[in-house]
Amino acid sequence: MSGLRAFLDPRSIAVIGASDNPHKIGGRPIHYLGKFGFKGAVYPINPSRPEIQGRRSYGSLADLPEAPDLAIVAVAGDTAVSTVEDCAARGVKAVVVMASGFGEVDPVAGKAKEQRMTAAARQAGMRIVGPNTQGLANFGSGTIVSFSTLFTEFDRAGGHVAMLSQSGALSTAPVSFLLRKGIGVRHCHATGNDCDVSVGELACAVAEDPEVKLLLLYLESIPDARHLEQLAAIARERDLPIIALKSGRSVAGQRAAQSHTGALANEDRVVDAFLAHHGIWRAPDIRGLVEASELYLKGWQPTGRRLVAVSNSGAVCVLTADAASEVGMPMAELAPHIDQQLKAILPSFATAANPIDLTAAMLSNDRLFGEILPVLAADPGADAFVIGLPVLGQGYDIAGIAEDSAALARQTGKPVLMASTQPAIARQFAERGIAVFPTEVEAVTALHQFVAHRELMAKAAARRTSSRGEAPRQPAAQAMVMLNEADSLALLAQHGLAVVPHRLCRSPSEVAAAVAAIGTPVVVKGCSADIAHKSELGLVRLNVGDEAAACQAFAAMEAIIRAQGARFDGVIVAAMAQGRRELMIGAHRDPVFGPVVVVGDGGKYVEVLRDTALLLPPFGSDEVNEALHSLRIAPLFAGVRGEPAMDTEALARAVVAIGRLMIAQADVMSVDLNPVLINDAGAGVVVVDAVVFRAAEQVRAD
Amino acid sequence: MSGLRAFLDPRSIAVIGASDNPHKIGGRPIHYLGKFGFKGAVYPINPSRPEIQGRRSYGSLADLPEAPDLAIVAVAGDTAVSTVEDCAARGVKAVVVMASGFGEVDPVAGKAKEQRMTAAARQAGMRIVGPNTQGLANFGSGTIVSFSTLFTEFDRAGGHVAMLSQSGALSTAPVSFLLRKGIGVRHCHATGNDCDVSVGELACAVAEDPEVKLLLLYLESIPDARHLEQLAAIARERDLPIIALKSGRSVAGQRAAQSHTGALANEDRVVDAFLAHHGIWRAPDIRGLVEASELYLKGWQPTGRRLVAVSNSGAVCVLTADAASEVGMPMAELAPHIDQQLKAILPSFATAANPIDLTAAMLSNDRLFGEILPVLAADPGADAFVIGLPVLGQGYDIAGIAEDSAALARQTGKPVLMASTQPAIARQFAERGIAVFPTEVEAVTALHQFVAHRELMAKAAARRTSSRGEAPRQPAAQAMVMLNEADSLALLAQHGLAVVPHRLCRSPSEVAAAVAAIGTPVVVKGCSADIAHKSELGLVRLNVGDEAAACQAFAAMEAIIRAQGARFDGVIVAAMAQGRRELMIGAHRDPVFGPVVVVGDGGKYVEVLRDTALLLPPFGSDEVNEALHSLRIAPLFAGVRGEPAMDTEALARAVVAIGRLMIAQADVMSVDLNPVLINDAGAGVVVVDAVVFRAAEQVRAD
Repeated sequence: MSGLRAFLDPRSIAVIGASDNPHKIGGRPIHYLGKFGFKGAVYPINPSRPEIQGRRSYGSLADLPEAPDLAIVAVAGDTAVSTVEDCAARGVKAVVVMASGFGEVDPVAGKAKEQRMTAAARQAGMRIVGPNTQGLANFGSGTIVSFSTLFTEFDRAGGHVAMLSQSGALSTAPVSFLLRKGIGVRHCHATGNDCDVSVGELACAVAEDPEVKLLLLYLESIPDARHLEQLAAIARERDLPIIALKSGRSVAGQRAAQSHTGALANEDRVVDAFLAHHGIWRAPDIRGLVEASELYLKGWQPTGRRLVAVSNSGAVCVLTADAASEVGMPMAELAPHIDQQLKAILPSFATAANPIDLTAAMLSNDRLFGEILPVLAADPGADAFVIGLPVLGQGYDIAGIAEDSAALARQTGKPVLMASTQPAIARQFAERGIAVFPTEVEAVTALHQFVAHRELMAKAAARRTSSRGEAPRQPAAQAMVMLNEADSLALLAQHGLAVVPHRLCRSPSEVAAAVAAIGTPVVVKGCSADIAHKSELGLVRLNVGDEAAACQAFAAMEAIIRAQGARFDGVIVAAMAQGRRELMIGAHRDPVFGPVVVVGDGGKYVEVLRDTALLLPPFGSDEVNEALHSLRIAPLFAGVRGEPAMDTEALARAVVAIGRLMIAQADVMSVDLNPVLINDAGAGVVVVDAVVFRAAEQVRAD
Repeated sequence: MSGLRAFLDPRSIAVIGASDNPHKIGGRPIHYLGKFGFKGAVYPINPSRPEIQGRRSYGSLADLPEAPDLAIVAVAGDTAVSTVEDCAARGVKAVVVMASGFGEVDPVAGKAKEQRMTAAARQAGMRIVGPNTQGLANFGSGTIVSFSTLFTEFDRAGGHVAMLSQSGALSTAPVSFLLRKGIGVRHCHATGNDCDVSVGELACAVAEDPEVKLLLLYLESIPDARHLEQLAAIARERDLPIIALKSGRSVAGQRAAQSHTGALANEDRVVDAFLAHHGIWRAPDIRGLVEASELYLKGWQPTGRRLVAVSNSGAVCVLTADAASEVGMPMAELAPHIDQQLKAILPSFATAANPIDLTAAMLSNDRLFGEILPVLAADPGADAFVIGLPVLGQGYDIAGIAEDSAALARQTGKPVLMASTQPAIARQFAERGIAVFPTEVEAVTALHQFVAHRELMAKAAARRTSSRGEAPRQPAAQAMVMLNEADSLALLAQHGLAVVPHRLCRSPSEVAAAVAAIGTPVVVKGCSADIAHKSELGLVRLNVGDEAAACQAFAAMEAIIRAQGARFDGVIVAAMAQGRRELMIGAHRDPVFGPVVVVGDGGKYVEVLRDTALLLPPFGSDEVNEALHSLRIAPLFAGVRGEPAMDTEALARAVVAIGRLMIAQADVMSVDLNPVLINDAGAGVVVVDAVVFRAAEQVRAD
């Protein structure tokens, strides 16, 4: 385990501000350390009492027989700061500062106090979790240094799930659901203001606990992605699934986050792309964070998405098929010999097609379920099973059906889920190890998450070059300069992109030569590193038919540019490029996540109609193709109404090239190619217009 | 109550095939009639026993002292058919046929048996529910003529919710959820094969029960919309909300439905439009069907969508804002005087902005909640309140907080919802009449459904002309003929649509005259009632510059059309119409739902990129504008990047005109206008191309 071991598995713990009352902040951890079996030494510190909750109390840190590995600071405000300084001086390895009233209430004075604490800690090699933290809970070692009330409700929590969050409520609310569902939790940590140890860094330490089989995160803001990248690398190594609930998806949510923690707003689509890139599943809400947990703990290695559904209700069959369709899981097509075997068993009025409707026949044949399931188990096309028994009662051999379902799970090693509206029925299945859900929709949704997440993890693992640790971020206040269009096109050509045939002309004679070389009609565009929007100023003329018109355009554009007080870099004479559709490729550097590449439908309305997909470099053609498939215009690529397919291979190569450019050239801040014209398969793509921004210093250095 | 009263409130009930065993199909209804307090006479019929479940048993229908209002037919197969005939002869008013093995297993022989039953019933004026039905349950009158096992679990069910379905499982599964949530159910009916009384017809009778405050439906197929239209009219009159779960959304779901009941597949987008038109909320799944039920029963009349959220967790504030944003509910902006009052109460480290983060300050001030809520109650901008208390425990005055929340609800009369992961905490709020949910997302989702549904109901109620009872359906196998383009355009012009200036020319001299009248350049199109796709055959020439070229096109097109063996109706010479964007307007007659109008983005790829919205005529401009707003291209209408707005008013008028045409002209089967060019606001829209199909006979009659 890393240097954060003292937080997770300390040999000794001091509680500064200890209380005899187990319901006070300084009392509850002492109670929990006893309740959950912490094996090390516990030192309550409270000068006014000789004994705290039956343990010997000490007057001060100095009185302790040893420097404790971990100290809880449960004293308030300014005292907390000096206490942290005392801890650093005493040789404490780690402190958990529960006191609030720091950066979260006052971004100036409060932050300054946090900095005093971190300065003292850093000097002494001590680490801080907090301030303003509800605390940490490792049920593996019994290290419950938390004042959450939740753990009063449960006697044991040990299991394989870890939950981490800055927020106290959002560390315990998901755990509250999990414990109520009977799913054991090993870690439940709230890190508070993250003045030193961040939730991401702590998660790295937790991910190294071999007993952790599923790691859950709540994130309100990602001010620095590096620890999450490191976490993802550790998780990939261990095949450990991570699910993150990142809030602040909406403007209203970001505003709320900012007002209560001063959180930096991340660009939400980039967060999506970042998490996906690293194989981390993004949950939409608390339920999504915990709902599928059980499936991750079964040891299943999903083989695909093809679903077999069995129910005693035809309506549930229909609803299951609808739900599966909604999430992109096809109903398995049963093998002919399986179908025949089913038809031999099922009475005439049951449906042998998948989903399999057993009708009320189950009521008259107790063994029907037990006969059907082994047949289905043998089907090679089945990847997972959902058993829907919405309402059962007297007349059904429920224990027998549950036993048959458990046998199916054992026999196949494949996911078997069950849906029942009746908790008493569901319990009989749960007791036999079946994952139970109230309805088939919830079962299918959870199953889809599990399978799709496993697919995402496999992709992230296959992506050998996925580390973005070195991919340059954009400094927050980076000064930038725009290249003129000729320089932009030259840079792109240098990186292997096909750009429209063109010449930069600085005189009418150069224009004449260019027209002769390129052939009419041509496009004439004014070129200036000071002007981004050419069309609006009359600096783009299409379909220029001859040399004279081109020279006239040169003169007119020079006048316009000079009238703007802008540099006149010449005019570009370019071929009239043809294409089937206008697409766009863009790239920029996110201050947190580094380079981001965008590809999508192009043209004038790209920002309004936004049909684009994001990719984080480095990535390959396969990932671009997947991104292209996610676009609304995707069906057009294959060609519709008799049209030939478009050259998505060339498009993918161009997008990959932009990804490489963003990695290779740290000084390129943004790239905006619109339109990129795509042609028939084999005929390539061509960049027609380009705007590149570079870091100001770099350009000067050129 | 309607003629179906005997099913819902009979004075006497015979059970044919009565069993002494309360767990058998013929025994359970007798048990339930006693358990749920049916006041009328119950006549078990079983020739082999003198007594059934403590009641006198009769040998046959003939032995009864009277003709019973209602008879349950719990005997099997062919006996069931003859029993129904006996009932009809004996003067029974209504029968519930539980036996299965009819149309659901054999569409020929099974259906024939059903027809025998209905024929006998019709002759005698008797009505049938079933066969293959789990039965009916009206807890208001104690008429539980159902063999569902569910009601063994509950002692009382009386309440204000009605649930109807053909499927037994999908009648009881939602009720299972409701009863477990403590929400009383008054009706729970499964109608089975609907050989006579359909679920829609029974729903009309149930909707007339004044104690029903919320009506839920599960529909697998809508073979006939008329009863649903009638139901919607009754509900509108009574302001009764209806929520429908219509399955078979997906191809896989429709296939499953077809295989288990032979259900007809409805076009899903038309189902959406139909239900919305009638103010019926469409639930996505079982949870969506029941999840918001409680909110409908509180008597709230929502005033808007602006939400106020209060939590002791900043993270829950962020998640609530995200959830509200997702469903289109803005966070209320607090009035300045409210804001000031809050700031006076709230300690510095809590956030007075909405969502309101009380932080752990609640822990040190028991009365904080009680002080804050009355201030918020006075805010005029608050339409609803969500209180998020994810995890509470010792140290909080939970009863006090619950009481304060209940006072807020009483004081404002506005929706107050609460979210807690802890059932024991939630219970204290529920006991005080607060609607409780596990998380803020579920609370906000339910609240949105309730508010949006009320909005939908208000719109349906305002639409005085909404009855579609007379709107002509398309007969299933209607033969159709295509009009040629000139006739299509003429029909549209006659109905008030602006069509492109054009002339149908039958000779070169007419072409010359048309070119002179219209002015160059023109479009020349071949015209034939036999040819729908002109472009592919070279029958469209754009930008024709002079008379000679137009005459040459006439000759060429005549040759092409004749070579196809098609009628040559002439060529159309039309102006080169200009427009900002190509849109489309279409209409057809759905065999179940009647006329449907489609409006959306136009052009070549309309079917692939499908950015369209559906409307059911009659409708007005407001509804068209709302439909236009739902389009992906909607932002373009207002004008982007400095462009002027487009003429959506003229577009709306054109769409309304098409709706009127479809109502007025029963012989018009379909209309396809693509492109319809839209211009700047004030400059109108113009129909450039049109294909109209008419019923074959009508056209002959012209």
